[in-house]
Amino acid sequence: MADKAQIVKPRTLSGFMELLPSEQIVFNKIKSVLTKVYELHGFYPLDTPVIEASEVLLAKGGGETEKQIFNIDSSDHDMSMRFDLTVPLAKYVAKNYSSLSFPFRRYQIGKVYRGERPQRGRFREFYQSDIDIIGDTALGILNDAEIPSIIYQIFKELGIDDFTIRINNRKVLGGFFALIGYEDKIEDILRVVDKVEKIGKEAEMEELAKLGLTAKASEKLWNFISLTANIEGQSMLSNAEVISKLREIAESEKTSSGADASAFEEGIKELEIVINAISSFGVPEGYYKIDLSIARGLDYYTGTVYETMLKKHPEIGSICSGGRYENLAGYYINRKLPGVGISIGLTRLFYILSEKKYVKSDVTAPASVLVIPMTDDFAGKTMKYAESLNAYFINEGIASQIYLEEKKFKAKMNYASSLKIPYVAIIGDDEEMEGTVALKNFETGEQVNVSKEQAANIVKKALDIKESDKIVNMQ
Amino acid sequence: MADKAQIVKPRTLSGFMELLPSEQIVFNKIKSVLTKVYELHGFYPLDTPVIEASEVLLAKGGGETEKQIFNIDSSDHDMSMRFDLTVPLAKYVAKNYSSLSFPFRRYQIGKVYRGERPQRGRFREFYQSDIDIIGDTALGILNDAEIPSIIYQIFKELGIDDFTIRINNRKVLGGFFALIGYEDKIEDILRVVDKVEKIGKEAEMEELAKLGLTAKASEKLWNFISLTANIEGQSMLSNAEVISKLREIAESEKTSSGADASAFEEGIKELEIVINAISSFGVPEGYYKIDLSIARGLDYYTGTVYETMLKKHPEIGSICSGGRYENLAGYYINRKLPGVGISIGLTRLFYILSEKKYVKSDVTAPASVLVIPMTDDFAGKTMKYAESLNAYFINEGIASQIYLEEKKFKAKMNYASSLKIPYVAIIGDDEEMEGTVALKNFETGEQVNVSKEQAANIVKKALDIKESDKIVNMQ
Repeated sequence: MADKAQIVKPRTLSGFMELLPSEQIVFNKIKSVLTKVYELHGFYPLDTPVIEASEVLLAKGGGETEKQIFNIDSSDHDMSMRFDLTVPLAKYVAKNYSSLSFPFRRYQIGKVYRGERPQRGRFREFYQSDIDIIGDTALGILNDAEIPSIIYQIFKELGIDDFTIRINNRKVLGGFFALIGYEDKIEDILRVVDKVEKIGKEAEMEELAKLGLTAKASEKLWNFISLTANIEGQSMLSNAEVISKLREIAESEKTSSGADASAFEEGIKELEIVINAISSFGVPEGYYKIDLSIARGLDYYTGTVYETMLKKHPEIGSICSGGRYENLAGYYINRKLPGVGISIGLTRLFYILSEKKYVKSDVTAPASVLVIPMTDDFAGKTMKYAESLNAYFINEGIASQIYLEEKKFKAKMNYASSLKIPYVAIIGDDEEMEGTVALKNFETGEQVNVSKEQAANIVKKALDIKESDKIVNMQ
Repeated sequence: MADKAQIVKPRTLSGFMELLPSEQIVFNKIKSVLTKVYELHGFYPLDTPVIEASEVLLAKGGGETEKQIFNIDSSDHDMSMRFDLTVPLAKYVAKNYSSLSFPFRRYQIGKVYRGERPQRGRFREFYQSDIDIIGDTALGILNDAEIPSIIYQIFKELGIDDFTIRINNRKVLGGFFALIGYEDKIEDILRVVDKVEKIGKEAEMEELAKLGLTAKASEKLWNFISLTANIEGQSMLSNAEVISKLREIAESEKTSSGADASAFEEGIKELEIVINAISSFGVPEGYYKIDLSIARGLDYYTGTVYETMLKKHPEIGSICSGGRYENLAGYYINRKLPGVGISIGLTRLFYILSEKKYVKSDVTAPASVLVIPMTDDFAGKTMKYAESLNAYFINEGIASQIYLEEKKFKAKMNYASSLKIPYVAIIGDDEEMEGTVALKNFETGEQVNVSKEQAANIVKKALDIKESDKIVNMQ
């Protein structure tokens, strides 16, 4: 043992999430729900390296990204740690283009790294969970309608019911701004528009005036944006009504000013196709709505865009976002590869759900049974019986653990209790002789003396019920 | 799209494994077998950061490790990437000591980093898959007997049947070397001993003489080591026979020279307890044997040690190794934490199995069914029917994917075939009207027209059979 003087403080760097065992179980269960749903939808798993050549990662350039990147000290290569999963995907698809079949569906759940200044809820190492469908030259618009069904299924399976998938189309936005003559101010205007639900019409109009919009343009913008804004005293339009109102705007603009509304109309058409198909992909009405205020990354997305909000917690912002892009890998390959995808910031989502105490707290150990031998004779019959009972449970698919320490009975029981192992199988000489098990349900305190087959059945039945428990409970 | 001139070559750094989609599926299946078996044995999952404070990672020091470590360029912290999962475990247990219940069982499957000179089969980023059982102050010896049952179950589930778990005890080795008076030369002697099966007795004795062993000591060493060596013309002893021969050696040394054999005898006792208990943990005889030549890391392991060899491929060396150690975290906490564990170099194992063509090659896509709509009318009834059929399959737990591109029928079928999706569900206007599915088994070519419930049953049944397929086939 080292002297106290030699001891290094065992610390974990700030900005790096490290969970206690029971928290890790919950995190992993969330991860396995995502994995299951992705694979049910035919997405291939991908696991690209955490480290890439710096020139590959930074092919696109971009100031903020470059500043935040973690570089590796190395004499032979300029290497860096990935800051998202999109750039590695672009590289992968370009590199393996000829080996892939398109549309190529892949998911990747992996850690990414950003040199952010650490602060509460901000992470320097965090999981992203991405899915993308990549086409070769073209990708059918209905893929955009399938994505919300994947989001829907994930949140439902996690136990989150209180969410809305907000959908927009960048061509609707771009087309409309062109129509009113402010395509170049789109970014500034969207920042104002984003606040509309908070600040109301009057303040909104003032801010738009500051940006140089004419009163007429501001009025038009207001009419447009308020179609889907959640404004007090105004009832929400259905998705179909929004589409039809957008058509009316296009018509009236064409008639009144003779403007070219073709981009706007193309966007409306796409939005309509997507919105109309979502329900056949299995998403009930009420879980998705058109929201004309969302835009996402303006330099990247070109068509459908998604955000997912928790109704009860709009302050959190979007917990699952993405959209359609024109060209995934233009920096690596001279071939147009359009795609559509979404990303969940898993570490952040887990952090938020935990903070709000929405995640399961009564997490049991991986083991469903703790076999407790009532003997300290390592080589004796009773110990051997306990060992083979443990092997029997495992062979039956029941997670089982055997307690092999020389401790008092109470300490053995305390161990089961502190790990929240639901059952203990107490094995003394009597059990060995009769070939039975004293099975105790830790929750109810009930204890039965049964055959090992019966014991296995009791535990299995209880587990089947447990299995249906959701990870998240927002009640 | 970028000009050709702007294109960055999409490359992956050498020494970093990046798999094609169908290879990744196999890799992930192996990973999930490990996960399943670990959890069945009550091990908690752990997921520590990839990056740690350098002074924490290097608390133990050590030249080779330090030279190979990846450092992160950062102004505010001296950070490095983990080079194994043992140091982070030690840190974790020391840091969270008061929150954990002991024995603490954890598994971790994660990437580790070493700045090796890249060469074929050597990786700079690779998965390690570790399990450890950590005790507080003490840890029962029978835990050492459970570990082989976990190794056994993993390899069996993977489809690897051709393996032997070799077991030794460092106290047997140390005790014996002390007995013959060469405890200080243990390292050099073991290097020679390691070659015994290759070079034979004569060459062996010569090399031992070079190390300065007397003829008598060399003879004793030969008698000891040849108890378990696989030497031509010599029949192998059973594990029980080896134990009894070891006892004889102890007795004869005590009688002849009056030497202190207590350490040796303690080792024999431990080895006997472990060997005798392994079968009750469910490992059939024939899968484990005592091997007095294995030692593992001499500065770390203190009791039981394990290596796992593929019988057909001894040249590969051990594919799963570990053992018992006295004190996990002496550099971080002033408390004795003994443990026992094993590690699988997952990336290397996968690489070897792939190289030797032992892994499944007929890997199907994640999707079991491809729904092919025979229409290009996005908003029409037939498309909607195809969409809802896809949702129905997914809801039934069948991985299903829908083909949404405007392509000729042949291209759609080719897509299914290139992804090796086992079934296609062809949906035309007739199927929509009748509410049926034209389900084609891609392997047999058989096509049936059935209800969606029947289609789901057919696919499920076929999948159940597939599920039992093993990942590895070494025939």
